[in-house]
Amino acid sequence: MALLERAQQLAAQGHDVIHLEVGEPDFETPAPVLEAIAAATRDRGTGYTPAAGLPALRQAIADDYRERFAANVSPAQIVVTPGASGALQLALAALINPGDGVLLSDPGYPCNRQFVNLVGGKPQPLVLKADNHFTLTASELLGAWQPDTRLAMVASPDNPTGNMLSLDTLQAMAEGAVQQGGLLLVDEIYQGLCYRGPAQSVLSRTDQVLVINSFSKYFCMTGWRLGWLVAPEPLVPAIERLAQNLFLAPSTPAQYGALAALQEPSLTILEQRHQLFARRRQCLLNGLAHLKLPVVSKADGAFYVYVDVSDWTNDSFAFCADLLEKEKVAMTPGLDFGDGHDHHRYVRLAYTCAESRLVDALHRLGHYLESL
Amino acid sequence: MALLERAQQLAAQGHDVIHLEVGEPDFETPAPVLEAIAAATRDRGTGYTPAAGLPALRQAIADDYRERFAANVSPAQIVVTPGASGALQLALAALINPGDGVLLSDPGYPCNRQFVNLVGGKPQPLVLKADNHFTLTASELLGAWQPDTRLAMVASPDNPTGNMLSLDTLQAMAEGAVQQGGLLLVDEIYQGLCYRGPAQSVLSRTDQVLVINSFSKYFCMTGWRLGWLVAPEPLVPAIERLAQNLFLAPSTPAQYGALAALQEPSLTILEQRHQLFARRRQCLLNGLAHLKLPVVSKADGAFYVYVDVSDWTNDSFAFCADLLEKEKVAMTPGLDFGDGHDHHRYVRLAYTCAESRLVDALHRLGHYLESL
Ligand SMILES: Cc1ncc(COP(=O)(O)O)c(C=O)c1O
Ligand SMILES: Cc1ncc(COP(=O)(O)O)c(C=O)c1O
Repeated sequence: MALLERAQQLAAQGHDVIHLEVGEPDFETPAPVLEAIAAATRDRGTGYTPAAGLPALRQAIADDYRERFAANVSPAQIVVTPGASGALQLALAALINPGDGVLLSDPGYPCNRQFVNLVGGKPQPLVLKADNHFTLTASELLGAWQPDTRLAMVASPDNPTGNMLSLDTLQAMAEGAVQQGGLLLVDEIYQGLCYRGPAQSVLSRTDQVLVINSFSKYFCMTGWRLGWLVAPEPLVPAIERLAQNLFLAPSTPAQYGALAALQEPSLTILEQRHQLFARRRQCLLNGLAHLKLPVVSKADGAFYVYVDVSDWTNDSFAFCADLLEKEKVAMTPGLDFGDGHDHHRYVRLAYTCAESRLVDALHRLGHYLESL
Repeated sequence: MALLERAQQLAAQGHDVIHLEVGEPDFETPAPVLEAIAAATRDRGTGYTPAAGLPALRQAIADDYRERFAANVSPAQIVVTPGASGALQLALAALINPGDGVLLSDPGYPCNRQFVNLVGGKPQPLVLKADNHFTLTASELLGAWQPDTRLAMVASPDNPTGNMLSLDTLQAMAEGAVQQGGLLLVDEIYQGLCYRGPAQSVLSRTDQVLVINSFSKYFCMTGWRLGWLVAPEPLVPAIERLAQNLFLAPSTPAQYGALAALQEPSLTILEQRHQLFARRRQCLLNGLAHLKLPVVSKADGAFYVYVDVSDWTNDSFAFCADLLEKEKVAMTPGLDFGDGHDHHRYVRLAYTCAESRLVDALHRLGHYLESL
C-alpha cells in the first residue's frame, strides 16, 4: 500500500513509472459490453435486481460452465455478487461461525484473512514451500486440517504465484474436505487466464465445493464490480438471504454487461487479449531468466510471476522501495501476501502492461541490479 | 419476501398488480447521469478506483454538504461505498466487537439487524410507540442505553414510517451517545425526500456522529449500487482499510455518474421528481383519510406511510396477502420491520408509482374494505 501510493505520487510528479504492481488488466471493458450496458440502462432500467442476480445471467453462467468447462451447474446454485469480493464475503458469512478455523495459503490473496476475521473465524495458515514452487498437494492440505477447521481456501490460478492446481488435486482436496465434515473453497477468479493447457473448473469434477469467480480479470470489468458464487444447492437459500440483507443486489448495469461479456463478439476479443497476456508472460520469463532472477512459482496462470530476489537483498520490501525510487519500476513485495513464507525473499511482478513496457522494465531492473 | 414473490408471480401471469410495496423510486436514473457514465467509461476507463472512492467525488460530496446542508465536512471524512448497504456494513465492522450492543429501532430498516449479527454484535431493540407516531426522543434513546451499548442506529427520514427527527433531537442524541462513550449512526438515505421543511443533515450540528447515505433514493440510482459514509476523522483510516479489504473499491462508472448527479442539470430533474413525490404523498394521505385508515406515522419524508389496519384485521400479513389475491394491490406487512411493535396492526405503503396508479389502488382498497 505504501509503495502503491509512492508509485502514484511519482507518476503524478511526471516520472515515467512502469507499473508491475497492478493486479488488474490494462485492457478496457470490451466495447460490446459497454454497448450492451448503455442499451440496457436505456431499455430495461436501472432498478434493483433480485438479490441473487438476474435469472438470465444465472442461466448464462450455468450455460458457460457446461459449454466451456464441461461442468454441470444449475442456475439455482449461482449467486451473482458485487465482485468476487462479495462472493468471498458471502461464503465466509454463510459457513463460518465464531471460532471456526479456515485454512489459508501463505503466500495467498491478502484479503482472505480479513473476510475470515470479519465473521470471527480463525485463520489457520498453510505455509507453502518454495522448494515445491509454492504449490500445494491434496495430502498437504488435508494433513493441515484441524478438528475445528471448517473451510479451506485455495485459488487456481493463484495470486501471487500464478500457480494452477490440477483437476485431480482439486477433486481430492474437495472430497477430502467433505470427508472431514468441512468444505473446500476454490477461487477461480483468474480462470481463463492460463498458458499451459485449457481453462478448467473444479466444478467439472464435483459439486460438493464452493467456487467463487468474477468478471474482473478475464472479462476486464474490474470497476464494474461483478462476480459470482457457486454453492452446493442446500446452502443457497441461506446465502441468498445473506446477499439480500448485506448487498440488496449486485449492480444492474454490470449484470447486463456480463450477459454480453459471455457471448460473441466479446469472447473473441477476450481470447485475443488472453493471447497477448501469453506473449507478455513469455517475454517476462525470458527476461528474468536472462537476469538470473529465479521465478519460484510455476506461473501457469493469472498475470503474475513470483520472483526470488534473495541473491540481491535480504529485504524484498526495501528492494522494491529502492527500485521504485531509483528506476521508477513498481513491484509488490512478498510481505503483502503473508508473513509465514520467507516473504522477504520474494516480489510479485504483474504483466498487466504492454510488452514494450515490460522490455523497458527488464532493462531498468538489469541496470538496477548492476548498481548493487 | 413471500408477498413480493407472489406479487411478481401475479404480474407475470398478466394481472394488473399495483405495487405499493416497492422501496425504490419508479424514476429512471437521470439522463445526464447516464450520459456522464457513458462518457467516462469511454474516456477515463473502468479500472478500480481508490478504496475510499475517487478524490473528486469525495470532494463533490463535501461541497454538497456545505452548499445544500450548511454542514462542514472534509473530503477526508468521506468513504464512498457499494450502496448505503456497504456503508452500514463498514460502520458496523469498524465499530462493533463481538458482544457489543447496538440499539435498533423497531419498527426500522430490517437489514440493520443483519449487519449487527454479521460482526457478532448484540441487537438491542428500541421499541417505538404508536401513540407517539413511532417517533423517538433523545431521552428515550439515551434512556435505553445499556452499559454494553456501543452504537445506536436511527434513520431520518425513516423507513417504514417516513418520520423525520429534528436537528435538535439528532444533536442531543449524538452528544448523548458520545457522553456514554458510544456513537450515534444516522441513516440519511432518504435525505432530500422531505415534505414539511428543507432537507437537513445532522452533520450541520456535529461531526461526532456516523452518517450513511446513498445515491439510491433521491438520486434514483438504486441499481448502480453507490453510497457513502461520513465518519469522525480519527475513525477513517480503519474504515478505509476495511473498505479496501472487503470491497476493493466502489463501482467506477457509478462514481462518475454520481459526480454528474450532484450537479445541474441533474439537480433540477431530481427536484422536479421530489415535487411529484410530494403530490403523490398528498394524494395518498387524502385517500387514506377518506377510507378512515389512520396513518400512524408523521410521514414527513421518504416515500412511505405506515398505516394502522387494525380496525379491519388482527393480522396485517394476512390482510396484505388477501388484498393482493383479491384486488391485486401489493403492500408490505409490519412484520417486515420488526416483531416488537404490534406489527400485526400495520402495513407500509410506498408511493413509488404514478399518482393515477395511487388513485386506482385507493379505489381497489376501498372496494376490498367494503367486502370485509
Ligand atoms: C485471488 C483473488 N480473489 C479475489 C479478488 C477480488 O476481485 P473482485 O472483487 O474484483 O472480483 C482478487 C482481486 O485481485 C484476487 O486476486
Ligand atoms: C433505511 C435504509 N437504509 C439503507 C438502505 C440501503 O440502500 P442502498 O444500499 O441501495 O443504498 C435502504 C434501502 O431500502 C433503506 O431503506
